[in-house]
Amino acid sequence: MSKAKKSEPELMDKIISLAKRRGFIFPSSEIYGGLNSCYDYGPLGVELKNNVKRLWWKTMVQENADIVGLDSSILMHPKIWEASGHIASFTDPLVDCKKCRKRFRADHLLEAARALKPQYLKEEPKDVSELKCPECAGDLTAKRDFNLMFKTFMGAVEDTASQIYLRPETAQGIYVNFENVQQSMRKKIPFGIAQIGKAFRNEITPGNYTFRTREFEQMEMQWFVNPKEADHWFEVWKERRKNWYLALGIKADNLRFRPHAKDELAHYAKAAFDVEYNFPFGWKELGGIHNRGDWDLSRHTKFSGHDFTYRDEAAGESFIPWIIETSAGADRAALAFLCDAYTEIDGGRTTTTESNKEMEVVLRLHPALAPIKAAVLPLSKKPELTKVAEDLLVKLSPHFMTAYDEVSSIGRRYRRQDEIGTPYCITVDFETLQDQAVTVRDRDTMKQERISLAEVAKYLQDKLVL
Amino acid sequence: MSKAKKSEPELMDKIISLAKRRGFIFPSSEIYGGLNSCYDYGPLGVELKNNVKRLWWKTMVQENADIVGLDSSILMHPKIWEASGHIASFTDPLVDCKKCRKRFRADHLLEAARALKPQYLKEEPKDVSELKCPECAGDLTAKRDFNLMFKTFMGAVEDTASQIYLRPETAQGIYVNFENVQQSMRKKIPFGIAQIGKAFRNEITPGNYTFRTREFEQMEMQWFVNPKEADHWFEVWKERRKNWYLALGIKADNLRFRPHAKDELAHYAKAAFDVEYNFPFGWKELGGIHNRGDWDLSRHTKFSGHDFTYRDEAAGESFIPWIIETSAGADRAALAFLCDAYTEIDGGRTTTTESNKEMEVVLRLHPALAPIKAAVLPLSKKPELTKVAEDLLVKLSPHFMTAYDEVSSIGRRYRRQDEIGTPYCITVDFETLQDQAVTVRDRDTMKQERISLAEVAKYLQDKLVL
Repeated sequence: MSKAKKSEPELMDKIISLAKRRGFIFPSSEIYGGLNSCYDYGPLGVELKNNVKRLWWKTMVQENADIVGLDSSILMHPKIWEASGHIASFTDPLVDCKKCRKRFRADHLLEAARALKPQYLKEEPKDVSELKCPECAGDLTAKRDFNLMFKTFMGAVEDTASQIYLRPETAQGIYVNFENVQQSMRKKIPFGIAQIGKAFRNEITPGNYTFRTREFEQMEMQWFVNPKEADHWFEVWKERRKNWYLALGIKADNLRFRPHAKDELAHYAKAAFDVEYNFPFGWKELGGIHNRGDWDLSRHTKFSGHDFTYRDEAAGESFIPWIIETSAGADRAALAFLCDAYTEIDGGRTTTTESNKEMEVVLRLHPALAPIKAAVLPLSKKPELTKVAEDLLVKLSPHFMTAYDEVSSIGRRYRRQDEIGTPYCITVDFETLQDQAVTVRDRDTMKQERISLAEVAKYLQDKLVL
Repeated sequence: MSKAKKSEPELMDKIISLAKRRGFIFPSSEIYGGLNSCYDYGPLGVELKNNVKRLWWKTMVQENADIVGLDSSILMHPKIWEASGHIASFTDPLVDCKKCRKRFRADHLLEAARALKPQYLKEEPKDVSELKCPECAGDLTAKRDFNLMFKTFMGAVEDTASQIYLRPETAQGIYVNFENVQQSMRKKIPFGIAQIGKAFRNEITPGNYTFRTREFEQMEMQWFVNPKEADHWFEVWKERRKNWYLALGIKADNLRFRPHAKDELAHYAKAAFDVEYNFPFGWKELGGIHNRGDWDLSRHTKFSGHDFTYRDEAAGESFIPWIIETSAGADRAALAFLCDAYTEIDGGRTTTTESNKEMEVVLRLHPALAPIKAAVLPLSKKPELTKVAEDLLVKLSPHFMTAYDEVSSIGRRYRRQDEIGTPYCITVDFETLQDQAVTVRDRDTMKQERISLAEVAKYLQDKLVL
């Protein structure tokens, strides 16, 4: 019995293969050869991701009287992206090879060249203009800034007046609605606005499966504060965000927290802190906490002419609210939970039957995250058993996601459910017809309990944190 | 005591005003003058719309063993829109006025001119080329087809090779994943794939508030069947879809069902049936049921080279599955529920106190749809009461959405909750300190019950269908 090490190079391939085979994640548009970096969530993937989003929303909005939700549109007034700085600064530096026509990010080329320096270069290169194409050694074009926002046209005319953008982040939808929300909900500072939604970035180098994609979903909560309290709240939200991942079962060893160095800070940030996960492809950012100061509301005041000064009656002063941002990727969180849960057991967990002696995969997802909460398995296809099993399914399905499986041996069916992380399997057997009870098997302890048919819904609801 | 008539012309304005004032729906990018036809869901609106989506998903996916979910990406391979017919046929006919530069839909102009005919025209016009500009009587350009798909470019080069579209419907994401889903979930026909997601249409004439917008959210379930069973299933899904709206409290008088005439059918449809709601601006489509035949999977077989023939072991035959589509707008459903729930009561519902003698609005939303399930109201701001109220809030909020309000008279606070559709108000009064019980008031019956603090969570959970 051995456990996979997270650094195994082929581990990610195994997870990707399981995700496709069992209906978690498919490449988008696959029958047409796929669309670079786009993925579709299959039947189990959409449940996992919906659970991630639902639990984030529950923690943020439902259980916090001081946080309210929002769902702003993806298409927004283009002036917003002027105010936010995205039109001027949301760019990647690009160069093309004049010979082979390949395109590269200038900063990535420079970084790679510097890493090679000791062996290959006399001097550390200062600028990409000193470099040649790494593929064919051809000359490179001058560096140019490429804006990462997807643009499109609204209305029937394609001109600059009708040009709009797909939002590159959900945050701005919150900022421009600050006053609408504050007034309609009669909120006093400090309070927060939470939002989950799609954003789009025309990344030059997407990659690492669903980690860096051009279409992705963000979960953001923007906390509006008195400037004097910003440092305090920055610390509070660091702790709360860390604890969210831990409470949902992420292994502490696979999480780390990294303050940004001063020279690493984005143009809007006074302080920043990343939450990172140890993916099979390395430590990567799941999300972050940023002290954005008054950058956003000041800029929108300037560009829209709408004054965002807030009168704090309790503190007896007026100010532009500062913003502590907590931002997380829904796709990244789902992927981290999937990777963290993936467990291989050589030779299976039990050796009582011959068929168990193969490699077994168990997805040890937190029950609240598991796509299917309980699977109903009649021991045989005999109608007297399937009738009871189907009746039970009808009783359970209004309460949580269920599955039904009557195909192949019970051991194989347990493993099928283990592989997708189903926390409970319910077996309907011939004894059930006598004692009106079923066997409930726990995915992790493999303990089996006999529970009466009348009580099984309640029994599972108490065990599942939904 | 009188109830607003749905045909009142100013009714929609009242609903729009309430929706903005109470945090249901804001115009998008409002501080920048708005973005035509785009709206943001405020704190209560996002709860309402999330409830609509959650209840649709529960009915479709959670409670149907034969339906599984999907969440495909918005950006898809452009060839999909060739196969679907959208590149060739998803167009509106447009004309421009050469004099005033205004733009019109040719079919709308022709329709308007025909309606005017008896008074103003000698002969009924046959084509838009016979018409002048209705605004300035200038000459019109020739009619041209305008494609309604938003287009953008993926990658760093803007050319036809990188041109992609924002999906104009979610359905195609389901069709191209038919085999991935069927095989990973080991499904046999008939079975369904359900999806909720954003779609985008560059409408020339959006309007009627959130009814026809350029960015909108669809809830679609595509049911794959043996061609011989298509008619049967079309009837089944007609009934089920009707019943969904009725079960969530839409008044039967405000719903109607309309089969499409043969000449009204879309290019892909063999039969179609609309579910319509009586909005304050007239009868409009909420969604529909379509028999799409083998159009979709045949086209994708042809364009992708991937054969979608399905082997039906039980029936002993092979075929391209036919599709019964059930499609609904999430924004439209939310708007219909909002309009249907809006109730005005002149002079208030009680005349016991002076302050009640004003016009009162009650949103009679089904409790499962209501943004806030219960509001906790301490009778006074005295700490001994607010402490109990806040403790109760902490006990209730893990189970459902709650609100807390301690400002102004209890009558005014009831009305504030009535106006946003909160089904239960819980008053903590001085007696609570003695009897450890609270008063629970029902929004619709206005009956008040005394419930012990220990039992109030359970009491409400039993009443609320969540």
